[in-house]
Amino acid sequence: MSDIKKVVLAYSGGLDTSVILKWLQDVYHCEVVTFTADIGQGEEVEPARKKAIALGIKPENIFIEDLREEFVRDYVYPMFRANAIYEGEYLLGTSIARPLISKRQIEIANAVGGDAVSHGATGKGNDQVRFELGYYALKPDVKVIAPWREWDLLSREKLLAYAEKHGIDISKKKNGGSPYSMDANLLHISYEGTVLENPAAEPEEDMWLWTVSPENAPDQAEYIELSYEKGDITAINGVAMTPAQVLTELNRLGGKHGIGRLDIVENRYVGMKSRGCYETPGGTIMLKGHRAIESITLDREVAHLKDELMPKYAKLIYTGYWWSPERQMLQGLIDASQATVNGWVRLKLYKGNVIVVGRESKTDSLFDPNIATFDEDGGAYNHADAAGFIRLNALRMRIAANAKLKRG
Amino acid sequence: MSDIKKVVLAYSGGLDTSVILKWLQDVYHCEVVTFTADIGQGEEVEPARKKAIALGIKPENIFIEDLREEFVRDYVYPMFRANAIYEGEYLLGTSIARPLISKRQIEIANAVGGDAVSHGATGKGNDQVRFELGYYALKPDVKVIAPWREWDLLSREKLLAYAEKHGIDISKKKNGGSPYSMDANLLHISYEGTVLENPAAEPEEDMWLWTVSPENAPDQAEYIELSYEKGDITAINGVAMTPAQVLTELNRLGGKHGIGRLDIVENRYVGMKSRGCYETPGGTIMLKGHRAIESITLDREVAHLKDELMPKYAKLIYTGYWWSPERQMLQGLIDASQATVNGWVRLKLYKGNVIVVGRESKTDSLFDPNIATFDEDGGAYNHADAAGFIRLNALRMRIAANAKLKRG
Amino acid sequence: MSDIKKVVLAYSGGLDTSVILKWLQDVYHCEVVTFTADIGQGEEVEPARKKAIALGIKPENIFIEDLREEFVRDYVYPMFRANAIYEGEYLLGTSIARPLISKRQIEIANAVGGDAVSHGATGKGNDQVRFELGYYALKPDVKVIAPWREWDLLSREKLLAYAEKHGIDISKKKNGGSPYSMDANLLHISYEGTVLENPAAEPEEDMWLWTVSPENAPDQAEYIELSYEKGDITAINGVAMTPAQVLTELNRLGGKHGIGRLDIVENRYVGMKSRGCYETPGGTIMLKGHRAIESITLDREVAHLKDELMPKYAKLIYTGYWWSPERQMLQGLIDASQATVNGWVRLKLYKGNVIVVGRESKTDSLFDPNIATFDEDGGAYNHADAAGFIRLNALRMRIAANAKLKRG
Amino acid sequence: MSDIKKVVLAYSGGLDTSVILKWLQDVYHCEVVTFTADIGQGEEVEPARKKAIALGIKPENIFIEDLREEFVRDYVYPMFRANAIYEGEYLLGTSIARPLISKRQIEIANAVGGDAVSHGATGKGNDQVRFELGYYALKPDVKVIAPWREWDLLSREKLLAYAEKHGIDISKKKNGGSPYSMDANLLHISYEGTVLENPAAEPEEDMWLWTVSPENAPDQAEYIELSYEKGDITAINGVAMTPAQVLTELNRLGGKHGIGRLDIVENRYVGMKSRGCYETPGGTIMLKGHRAIESITLDREVAHLKDELMPKYAKLIYTGYWWSPERQMLQGLIDASQATVNGWVRLKLYKGNVIVVGRESKTDSLFDPNIATFDEDGGAYNHADAAGFIRLNALRMRIAANAKLKRG
Repeated sequence: MSDIKKVVLAYSGGLDTSVILKWLQDVYHCEVVTFTADIGQGEEVEPARKKAIALGIKPENIFIEDLREEFVRDYVYPMFRANAIYEGEYLLGTSIARPLISKRQIEIANAVGGDAVSHGATGKGNDQVRFELGYYALKPDVKVIAPWREWDLLSREKLLAYAEKHGIDISKKKNGGSPYSMDANLLHISYEGTVLENPAAEPEEDMWLWTVSPENAPDQAEYIELSYEKGDITAINGVAMTPAQVLTELNRLGGKHGIGRLDIVENRYVGMKSRGCYETPGGTIMLKGHRAIESITLDREVAHLKDELMPKYAKLIYTGYWWSPERQMLQGLIDASQATVNGWVRLKLYKGNVIVVGRESKTDSLFDPNIATFDEDGGAYNHADAAGFIRLNALRMRIAANAKLKRG
Repeated sequence: MSDIKKVVLAYSGGLDTSVILKWLQDVYHCEVVTFTADIGQGEEVEPARKKAIALGIKPENIFIEDLREEFVRDYVYPMFRANAIYEGEYLLGTSIARPLISKRQIEIANAVGGDAVSHGATGKGNDQVRFELGYYALKPDVKVIAPWREWDLLSREKLLAYAEKHGIDISKKKNGGSPYSMDANLLHISYEGTVLENPAAEPEEDMWLWTVSPENAPDQAEYIELSYEKGDITAINGVAMTPAQVLTELNRLGGKHGIGRLDIVENRYVGMKSRGCYETPGGTIMLKGHRAIESITLDREVAHLKDELMPKYAKLIYTGYWWSPERQMLQGLIDASQATVNGWVRLKLYKGNVIVVGRESKTDSLFDPNIATFDEDGGAYNHADAAGFIRLNALRMRIAANAKLKRG
Repeated sequence: MSDIKKVVLAYSGGLDTSVILKWLQDVYHCEVVTFTADIGQGEEVEPARKKAIALGIKPENIFIEDLREEFVRDYVYPMFRANAIYEGEYLLGTSIARPLISKRQIEIANAVGGDAVSHGATGKGNDQVRFELGYYALKPDVKVIAPWREWDLLSREKLLAYAEKHGIDISKKKNGGSPYSMDANLLHISYEGTVLENPAAEPEEDMWLWTVSPENAPDQAEYIELSYEKGDITAINGVAMTPAQVLTELNRLGGKHGIGRLDIVENRYVGMKSRGCYETPGGTIMLKGHRAIESITLDREVAHLKDELMPKYAKLIYTGYWWSPERQMLQGLIDASQATVNGWVRLKLYKGNVIVVGRESKTDSLFDPNIATFDEDGGAYNHADAAGFIRLNALRMRIAANAKLKRG
Repeated sequence: MSDIKKVVLAYSGGLDTSVILKWLQDVYHCEVVTFTADIGQGEEVEPARKKAIALGIKPENIFIEDLREEFVRDYVYPMFRANAIYEGEYLLGTSIARPLISKRQIEIANAVGGDAVSHGATGKGNDQVRFELGYYALKPDVKVIAPWREWDLLSREKLLAYAEKHGIDISKKKNGGSPYSMDANLLHISYEGTVLENPAAEPEEDMWLWTVSPENAPDQAEYIELSYEKGDITAINGVAMTPAQVLTELNRLGGKHGIGRLDIVENRYVGMKSRGCYETPGGTIMLKGHRAIESITLDREVAHLKDELMPKYAKLIYTGYWWSPERQMLQGLIDASQATVNGWVRLKLYKGNVIVVGRESKTDSLFDPNIATFDEDGGAYNHADAAGFIRLNALRMRIAANAKLKRG
């Protein structure tokens, strides 16, 4: 263990990663560099500086960054171009944040001459995989320290005892704190553990932090209009916004209208099923809106090809392969499809519902009312063509049926 | 045209198919056999008998059947085992009814010595394809008459004039009637045409016939429990029901709670985009429930394989290939996966929302709280395993990154 | 029919298209523009000029072009990057030539103010589809004349009579000529019809025109080395060559060594099975070589993704969708994968066999002998990692097996 | 380590597994049960009994079985129904033998009350994964001992020293023996290691054991006829044979004619590329023959669905997931497709070539010469149908092209 010189730790400033910080110093006797990012988790990141200094980290080894724009622009937006959903339900809110953290940790390690990285994910979850696949893909010789897989502080009591012994503030945890294991970023907040470990039981209403319940949402529906350029939202109600601004505003709108709660049992990459609850207010609106603008601007077979590839793409993100070449190849295909995805979509938000009520593309619509009409179309479409179309599509089945008849 | 002796017409008893009936007699000079089925469209089918007789059909040539149970049991249920959705949104309500109609028409043709079949679907739509692919697959030498592709009654005025001339009752249509082109069966009702041909415009509230609006739905949520056997719902709230009873009851529940409205632009098989609105109250509940029971009873890779194949399966149904060998092969795979899909799901219905609040399988759950827990698991899972898992999964990317580094 | 002004005909100079030329003049009374391309079919194209003039075509309406380089560079090479094979056997030699012909016909139509295009493909085959899908995709309002679907010259006798009547030279056909329906370009030559219509019978040896039989090939094997850049062959035995030169030389080598004969029954897009024989000497070598260079330069999952998408890609080309957006999207993905496909492959050619005997990439090899070795690797690979890798991959199956045991 | 009572070892009788046997006794102090199977590797299995007894194994703990028929019938045949090929080249000869060994080891463990299993596969290869995934899937609580991942006998010298010390016969190895790491069963023999670790170098001719070189194969071609029932070969040249007899005879024929050599670089599941050489004489003939009989008896879309799923199926077998539910689901689909795959195929074997020269199915042919013919078909096919077929297939592309033109 003594061969590690300098480790870059994904440091939230919370209890767990503070204990990890201390433990790294104690066990590995190495220099620790902390990296704390604002990716929209909704907590101040600046306080992490003071805590790190208190734990003996040199000021030049403390990295605190606001990555919200980069997160939405380079990770969330590309993923939504694919209409990615894991197992029919999950919008990949946790999964999509990990690649960015990994990348910055490695960039910092390269900048400060670090030879190792560390994170606070447990040994049973997906996040360890997502972090570490990123590390290895971007810096193949990096050393990875995953304290939760190595130490013996596996119960809450042991962890608290260790913290107390080393002068780490545990006041928050002692006085209760949330019973759930949570994770948040600009795209979503997740809940796992304790009572949720019984999939038959409904979660308590007071667990949900980002959205009101549909019952408590306004009785008045709200209409919004989303503008799209190349598949990305660039304005809400005509007001141009940056990606992070868009998602922040959609979270506000979704949260207000009780939109985006999800309660599922999912299949983890490490092999077990787990129950998770999620709030993805803005993302839920984005998915609905994106499908709607694609419905008038994408060619049918392009849309179907995207739909066929989507489960694979979503699985790659869920299982941590953002930085793999196959994810990048699929992204190239998906991005190429979005050149014509321009226009606007109008949505009605009401008590948990996101309802599409209009969509239009002045420049790229493939909806041709002349051809689609039930009325006479002036020859745009020749009804007789359908007979040949059907007969040739049926031919192989007719031949087979005839062969069967002959066989008797 | 004179070589057709006896044609089996899919006859609703309405104006359009009554005109077709007359037109077949006039133009083809052949014996017409009418087939009218109750598949849950919500209209009486018995009156079709009197109308057929009035148009000169012999009593023995009139077939009126209640196919609701067969429809749900052999078509709707198998399709929902696949979680089938077309283009991310459409639950295939119209598509799934056509194969049954086709099959019965052919069976009747075989029984009465018919050599031809006919239907009332237009030359621009998907239904002509769905009907006719079924006909050809099941009776390869059958002759198909598609009046809308042959005649010159392409405007409403001409059609009404023809009807009036031949003594067909047009009172309903003259006095207005719905401006939409509609289709209904036990799974859904659809709306197309007129004002819907502008995808930018929201449909009028009074178009929707089966569901109240979320706004008008009860302020009180309702909880229901669905019991599953091999992927199919066999009871609601503990009361055993037949398939058609299940769907009827779920339609009632969904309709009451404003569930299952859909407004989309879809890609037709014949090549154009069209805008359609749908109400699928029971089906929307079924899809959500089925995903939930699968989430605890299906193996991960089985679930993912189903998800990867689903778009293809849904497309086969949408485009009319129910009777194709490839749909049947996929169905075999899907059905085989459902052996363990047993248990119950609890859902909360509220103003357009279907919310999963619990799921359990006494016999087949793959959710193992011992392994999933955040607490100590007594060795059920070895955290250290994850390190090797990650390192070998990363190996190819590390080798590639190293190769890239060497290249410089 | 009188509304067509100027039609661009894909004109080979042979009997069939000469009859078509005449027939277009007679029936459509329109100006005919002839387009004759050298795509490596092995016949002189210049004589087509004299024949066209003899049939009354104005000199400025005669287009004769050497497209061999464009054909190989922009069509054959991109297709081979995908390792495309249709139905496990067919290298798509005819399919890949059609998009180029279509494109040039449309470009010429645009240049000369033509409003229609015409081709000599029959009504039963794939080629009509390939030509016409290209026409429509590139010039949506173009008029298409497919004489074989329109006229009544459906027997050889009628065709010859028509030709004779109009002074078209039929000497070649009268005196026999090949009994097969053939098509050739730089990638392959195909044979269909007559005795081949019995799939149980072996073709006659003298049918094959481009290759010697393996029996008659040299008794001495020949070694060749192919150099690859971004997946394309750029040199043979160290001699840099253009794409068409490469394919020409590989055809020579393959033909000499009895390589590339194929005898199959294939499924046409229009619905029937047909029996075809093909000689693709150079292409057969290319496929083998490309797989070999990819084997050391492509990431595993990229290679597998390509393999999973290949059948769809090949089907798109076979069925005529080269100019579709989905083919172009897939091509983008495939091309992106080839950035690292650089190096050389050594092949042994011997009596029908193409045997890979070596492959190397100085710049992009992902084969790491240090890690692959059976000998001690100095820690490059940790054997213990495999235990965790296997255990977590097995976990879901163990949980399921345990659940099954509990169920009893 | 002391908690293991009785371990079932996959025991070949060779040096490596003899050392393992001894090492298990020494290190684990447990009772060892040996399992030796004849799966066609070409060596006597009975001598393993004497060796086991010499190492102190009780007679009732020695299991020696002839599994050749079961191997071909239940593993090789089902796999060939899928036309399975890994990475475009490899016929999965090693992969397919592992599931059977795993299954029998577990069955024996269950029969004798064993709590552990062990094998001789190394820590870098695929076989450890294939063995152990099988173990865990079939007996979830089994303990697995993989000596090559645990011990320190990682060099040949150490292994020989250990053997000598414990009185295990090493005469064969000392006097040379093959330099290659080899594996054989009725389907194939494989070579890895030493000089093969340089992918640029051609293997020595004397490495190949099962086939003559094409150069040394007979100058006279040999024709054979294979009879198929439900996709499986049931007779050769009209002589009914069991599955193992079929494969034995095809190996003889292929070996004689220089058929089935393969030299590739493949991607292992554990993450690295490795170079392997294979001889699969009978399997190479089987693949070619199976494709040919399918070509006239399978529906087009069924064949294409199989082709699209094949890479996934092959990957499942390669990576050791034979006993997974997803492989079994896919197998069900594949097997269902073979109901009509009945008939015969005639092949010409000549110096490395397997050439299809005829195929026929009296009962299930979908090849209809009436429809396929170039001659007049008496109305079996209506040429005019193709126009509508093409126009509707082109419609979406025309609409898109028009939209693009309007945009300018």
